[in-house]
Amino acid sequence: MNDKISLLGAGLIGSLMGVYLKKRGLDVAIYEKRRDWRKDKLAAEGRSINMALSHRGLKALEKAGLKEKVMPYTLPMYGRRMHDEHGNTYFQPYGKDNQAIYSVSRNTFNEILLEEADRCGANIFFNHKVETVDVENKRVRFLLADGSTKDISSEVIIGSDGAHSSLRNAFECQTRFNYKQEYISHGYKELRIPPTADGGFAMDPEALHIWPRGRFMLIALPNLDKSFTCTLFLPFEGYKVCFEKIHDGKDAEYIFQTYFNDAYHLMPDLAEEYDRNPTAALINTECYPWTVNNCLLIGDAAHAIVPFYGQGMNCGFEDCNILDELIGKFGTFSWDLVFEKFQKIRKPDTDAISTLAMENFVEMSDSMADPKFLIRKKIEAKLHELFPDEWVPLYSMVTFTDMSYSEAYAQGKLQEQIMDEVMRDPMISHKWDSLDFENILNRVDAVRSV
Amino acid sequence: MNDKISLLGAGLIGSLMGVYLKKRGLDVAIYEKRRDWRKDKLAAEGRSINMALSHRGLKALEKAGLKEKVMPYTLPMYGRRMHDEHGNTYFQPYGKDNQAIYSVSRNTFNEILLEEADRCGANIFFNHKVETVDVENKRVRFLLADGSTKDISSEVIIGSDGAHSSLRNAFECQTRFNYKQEYISHGYKELRIPPTADGGFAMDPEALHIWPRGRFMLIALPNLDKSFTCTLFLPFEGYKVCFEKIHDGKDAEYIFQTYFNDAYHLMPDLAEEYDRNPTAALINTECYPWTVNNCLLIGDAAHAIVPFYGQGMNCGFEDCNILDELIGKFGTFSWDLVFEKFQKIRKPDTDAISTLAMENFVEMSDSMADPKFLIRKKIEAKLHELFPDEWVPLYSMVTFTDMSYSEAYAQGKLQEQIMDEVMRDPMISHKWDSLDFENILNRVDAVRSV
Repeated sequence: MNDKISLLGAGLIGSLMGVYLKKRGLDVAIYEKRRDWRKDKLAAEGRSINMALSHRGLKALEKAGLKEKVMPYTLPMYGRRMHDEHGNTYFQPYGKDNQAIYSVSRNTFNEILLEEADRCGANIFFNHKVETVDVENKRVRFLLADGSTKDISSEVIIGSDGAHSSLRNAFECQTRFNYKQEYISHGYKELRIPPTADGGFAMDPEALHIWPRGRFMLIALPNLDKSFTCTLFLPFEGYKVCFEKIHDGKDAEYIFQTYFNDAYHLMPDLAEEYDRNPTAALINTECYPWTVNNCLLIGDAAHAIVPFYGQGMNCGFEDCNILDELIGKFGTFSWDLVFEKFQKIRKPDTDAISTLAMENFVEMSDSMADPKFLIRKKIEAKLHELFPDEWVPLYSMVTFTDMSYSEAYAQGKLQEQIMDEVMRDPMISHKWDSLDFENILNRVDAVRSV
Repeated sequence: MNDKISLLGAGLIGSLMGVYLKKRGLDVAIYEKRRDWRKDKLAAEGRSINMALSHRGLKALEKAGLKEKVMPYTLPMYGRRMHDEHGNTYFQPYGKDNQAIYSVSRNTFNEILLEEADRCGANIFFNHKVETVDVENKRVRFLLADGSTKDISSEVIIGSDGAHSSLRNAFECQTRFNYKQEYISHGYKELRIPPTADGGFAMDPEALHIWPRGRFMLIALPNLDKSFTCTLFLPFEGYKVCFEKIHDGKDAEYIFQTYFNDAYHLMPDLAEEYDRNPTAALINTECYPWTVNNCLLIGDAAHAIVPFYGQGMNCGFEDCNILDELIGKFGTFSWDLVFEKFQKIRKPDTDAISTLAMENFVEMSDSMADPKFLIRKKIEAKLHELFPDEWVPLYSMVTFTDMSYSEAYAQGKLQEQIMDEVMRDPMISHKWDSLDFENILNRVDAVRSV
């Protein structure tokens, strides 16, 4: 068989890329190792159950004509609702009025995208597990469900096959391929807050809930069925509260009663779920080059990031959008040129979001419980309100604009420097709303010109 | 088949480890993908032809009873001989009188070690190329020369299979295995200075020769047959002098005439060799853990470093020595314990030498041509002469002692700080030998206590 373009992996990124390529009139085959989950729903394997769609992802969907199809399956979250150890909660808006990120179930979402790829005419093959990729000859050998193998060759291979990408594994043997995989010290486990007895949400459904506890935290996102998916992030070992020291659901109940007591009372199946659900690890990967001999990595295959900025999927969708733009601009006469441009443009941005995602764990789990941090956020919100175009908080640049991640990162570092200075005033908590905000804004140019 | 201990790779490290394990009375099999090069000499594939043995390596050999067997095949190099662009040379001793590093051919050396492993009773299997490693069940599938496969299982598997280790590849799929491979911007090509017409060395054989040219350099090590093996280190691309811009041997001749004119006149076969010999890349790898389920990585498989400190092999031999010591101390009752101890003790040291090796390229190719750098070296040599135990230059700590690499690194950083201060004096070149050396020495404690 000789496909023009073979996409490895029919996850969120592969499916959207398939749609884009078909809309360009190209010949596309998508190979997926799992069974067709449209017919036979499978739990996503060790991956988070729901995602947070934000501006970059929505923009990519809109361009593919998919935004309207997806929106009915999402729930807007307008801010973070922090839960302290006494059961008090504090709401912190993500941005300005009506700016929200959207909770969506991975399975439903994947189904919509894959159906669209199918409808556009992509050939989709399930039960095709990559066994080997011969990069030089652009040949892939698949292991099929019956144990037999199938070989295909292709003009172009795009690896949208996730953090453990087979195409990237094949790249690893190429001379001068740089690669790094790093697991962070924390893992996670998914749990559930079911709907209330009368069928409603057990908490405010218009927020992402966080129980920040320093070295660990619990978060919860709303689902369409009025449940919440909770994710418990703990160090694997070495701390008072860590996965190694929680031997079973009974231990987990004790931990929840101590640290997340308000949530505990909403989780009747905690012990059982704790025992049943896997504890998963969190990987960060970086590699370069992304392209070898008309083969290209996109999404997590090129840059798997930790989930603490809610950007993994959005960043992958932006990959698809940018790649599609380059195909539009340069055509398919020279894939080499398109792929080379893509990696040159995109690598600094994915490096930036990778760093931000890593840094944001501290912000989510620790700083949010700190009153000074909340004052800081308020000053930044005020600056944004007064100078909506000149001072945009880093979170907003990343989440609600499509400014390049690396530009947002650089701008964020400037603002951080200025805010560090502002916060050095020991009386800041008392006088923050009478600050000379225009003066603070003007420091941006001063600092930038240094 | 069920071996007690399977070693993957019969290179320098695997062979020495085999000797150690046999001397402990253990059941050892060594599997090697290449043909038996005792019968059928093969050029080492894309790896350097000769190595520099120094203290750590010699100590490990001595403990295995191998030092006396190896020494006759080595040539002492007492210092660096630098060649400037005008053909002048400058000698810089490595250490004190009689301290030397020893040039030795990889092939001859490997032969000696492997014969010793054989003599001690290790079972050695050639033409066994690892196809897959099943870490969980400690099974290895080999591809044999006739195309058939062979499966073995083992109580313990030790991967001494180099920078592109198959065992490490198998570890990569293990959850929470951290891995990084990074190619540096420079590559290398080996060339040769033959003996003179009357059968002698064409240059001083008691030195390692360096032609430092800033972003690139040439080095040469003496061989027993009175030739020198030269290694040309150039950036792959992006500079005036780089591999990309040297299209063939003719271009190489032009470059040599311009930058290495004295060497050029000693290299009658330069153009032909340049065309024939491969251009090789330089990889740095770091990973952790080194052990999973009674499988262990040692040598380059655990930590491949760049060659600029001449420590790759010495560090690998020290791995063998330390592992053997731990087996002596804890026995083989619990391999888990031994391997766990090994990685805990050893990882900070291999990280340190990895960093030093990376940093030393600048020292070798650039600083050595700088007169201020030479003054600096002279001050350090004087300090070492006056206070032989209190001030040992970093190069000497690494090369002529078995102080742990991480301790040498830390001590070296302290000394660097002090020397930076000393060198800040604009008149230093004129007054360096009348400095108050005792005062300089005393700053070590002052800086350390900060």
